Amino acid sequence: RINPTRLISRVERLGKIGALEGGGVCRLALTPSEKLGRDHLVAEMKALGLDVAIDPIGNIFGARKGRREGPAVMLGSHIDTVATGGLYDGALGVLAGLEVIATLNEGNIETDLPVVVAAFTNEEGARFAPDMLGSLVFVGGLSLAEALDIVSIDGKRLGEELEAIGYAGTDQGPEEVAAYFELHIEQGPVLEDEKVEIGAVLGVQGISWTELTIRGRSAHAGTTPIRLRRDAGLAAARIAAGVGAFVRSMGGDQVGTVGASTLTPNLVNVVAETAVMTVDLRNPDEGLLQVAEAKLTALIEQIAGEEEVTIERRSLARFEPVDFAPALIETIDGTARVLGFSTRRLFSGAGHDAQMLARIAPAAMIFVPSVKGISHNITEYTEPADLANGANVLLQVTLKQALP
Amino acid sequence: RINPTRLISRVERLGKIGALEGGGVCRLALTPSEKLGRDHLVAEMKALGLDVAIDPIGNIFGARKGRREGPAVMLGSHIDTVATGGLYDGALGVLAGLEVIATLNEGNIETDLPVVVAAFTNEEGARFAPDMLGSLVFVGGLSLAEALDIVSIDGKRLGEELEAIGYAGTDQGPEEVAAYFELHIEQGPVLEDEKVEIGAVLGVQGISWTELTIRGRSAHAGTTPIRLRRDAGLAAARIAAGVGAFVRSMGGDQVGTVGASTLTPNLVNVVAETAVMTVDLRNPDEGLLQVAEAKLTALIEQIAGEEEVTIERRSLARFEPVDFAPALIETIDGTARVLGFSTRRLFSGAGHDAQMLARIAPAAMIFVPSVKGISHNITEYTEPADLANGANVLLQVTLKQALP
Ligand SMILES: NC(=O)NCCC(=O)O
Ligand SMILES: NC(=O)NCCC(=O)O
Repeated sequence: RINPTRLISRVERLGKIGALEGGGVCRLALTPSEKLGRDHLVAEMKALGLDVAIDPIGNIFGARKGRREGPAVMLGSHIDTVATGGLYDGALGVLAGLEVIATLNEGNIETDLPVVVAAFTNEEGARFAPDMLGSLVFVGGLSLAEALDIVSIDGKRLGEELEAIGYAGTDQGPEEVAAYFELHIEQGPVLEDEKVEIGAVLGVQGISWTELTIRGRSAHAGTTPIRLRRDAGLAAARIAAGVGAFVRSMGGDQVGTVGASTLTPNLVNVVAETAVMTVDLRNPDEGLLQVAEAKLTALIEQIAGEEEVTIERRSLARFEPVDFAPALIETIDGTARVLGFSTRRLFSGAGHDAQMLARIAPAAMIFVPSVKGISHNITEYTEPADLANGANVLLQVTLKQALP
Repeated sequence: RINPTRLISRVERLGKIGALEGGGVCRLALTPSEKLGRDHLVAEMKALGLDVAIDPIGNIFGARKGRREGPAVMLGSHIDTVATGGLYDGALGVLAGLEVIATLNEGNIETDLPVVVAAFTNEEGARFAPDMLGSLVFVGGLSLAEALDIVSIDGKRLGEELEAIGYAGTDQGPEEVAAYFELHIEQGPVLEDEKVEIGAVLGVQGISWTELTIRGRSAHAGTTPIRLRRDAGLAAARIAAGVGAFVRSMGGDQVGTVGASTLTPNLVNVVAETAVMTVDLRNPDEGLLQVAEAKLTALIEQIAGEEEVTIERRSLARFEPVDFAPALIETIDGTARVLGFSTRRLFSGAGHDAQMLARIAPAAMIFVPSVKGISHNITEYTEPADLANGANVLLQVTLKQALP
């Protein structure tokens, strides 16, 4: 069994780094506050006797040797957050990994395979798109060169930001992964609603992120007749409202969000010249996600025509739905039940590093409940007992894979 | 007759201050670049022998003595611009005033009444609301104390910004104004469309500016079911689209613009927590403007309910339509025709300092054509001949009022 007090203390200590007034944290990827989080993590890994490796995209790996050199059992997640993040999203998976190591150390338990705790770079995708970037590079889904060239929402090149914080590593991560487990808060309302303690995650829904750059013509808000306008702001608003409407009309599991929208010059009496906005569409069903994307395309064409603006689109991320390894899902579900927890299988609404690891190894996830389903919000919260439950499941499934 | 070459040179020299790459200028009120514009203007006034006075709201007055001390004939406008401004909006009225003074000086013409050239603070309203702020304070429509406490879009207090650039004056403007003339580019398409050289402005349409602060709840874009969202961004988009729709359905002279809209935290995968947006509604008919305002109110209430967000509203500016002095309109129109120009009477779509001066003195405006009706855009342009025509009308109407 893991030590619940020690686990909570781990979460609280990392949560102080980048802490916001009023609660929550802001550790946007590769910013100074995230660097401090990384430094803290590396120190904790070393204190637990792990061999720390930093790879060229800044992923951090802490390895505990096994009896033999074989493929690693990896426990991972991320420590970057959105700007209005909570203490648990990502951090839990990494810190519970450390807690598993501490528990193995305490019990002098030698595993057959090495156990590696991983923290992947820029999982959130809030500062650099796409999300799950570090794990995507790790599994070979995106070249290092391309990744280093990605520009942040604040105009910085990823490669330079990585150098600036000293995390452009020269090590390699584990060469082979026997199994990947990620403990994470659900970030949605299902487990809490159904009073279920542990979620065995079936997979991750498809994710489609698009950036639209709308170009109109700045004009005087008082003197320019409506028929002569090419209002980039109105076009952006109509698209955002249109996304809201078609998502509602599709119903089911379809979600869609315009989370970012920036007008230029953004002044009360100037018709906007340009608008840059993002559209986040998700569905567990690839076919339905494509329907949503087609509706977005039609909407863009309609509005571009009606408002006489040009609209340039750029894909920021596109990941098909991913299914996790059935054997590992079964292991998680069964182990949790043996430990006395109620369980449920469910899909993930959020993207996770596990979906990238699934490309190269059996991968699966353990969810614990999120109070009111709230995440990406400073009031994100998971009960201490739930954190400990999840870490105990993580410990047991790790042992099952790493012991002979 | 004024000297056209010298007038153009005045416009070009001021246009270098705050010049943008690619054309146009950015001299937002009370910024360092606008301070340089003010310094330039004061130096030009002094070179022309004018007595310069700066009042406590930063309005700049350059006075040329008359034979007697009576009320002043004032020629004015503003030198602040929007962020994507042109060289003519505001600047023309002030610089043509200087050109009138230069012409009087050259001809050794002594007027009966003093002639004062005025540049009013923060006419645009782009950085501090309301627009026409300096002239509003000058005529007593807003107390100095209240004006100094206004906070800019970049969070600065007006009083401190005025001190910072050294334009918190201690002088008084003219005690009495005999007549106020403002030469301005039309900023709209009417004169050009109808190939008319001079517009005699009948008045200014009503202006209603509202700022909305929408508060929802930040949430995860992937995991939060649509029915559980309180999406401030979607609410803002629906209101902006709704303004666009009701303005189109009202037709006639109604215009409406959402020029500024800012989401927080403004990230691709976070449902927006807050949105702050502006709504600019205008109509030459006060009754119709009130109809538009009522539609806005209904829209806000509908969307607040449907999206489960709170919406706080704040009036940034509210000015009823203003009629200029019939005798001065007649003078402008008649003088222009005597000079051989085609004329037309028309309403102004933009707000102008003249509408504030109209509260304390007979006031009127001279419009010259704007190419393609474009303004608040770096491609704003007026032909040199039109600039000169306008300045010649300004000279003649000034003489009519200021000579005995
Ligand atoms: N777990 C998580 O919040 N991932 C961020 C990527 C996304 O799903 O938007
Ligand atoms: N003339 C001018 O552009 N005034 C700015 C105030 C406004 O009409 O928005």
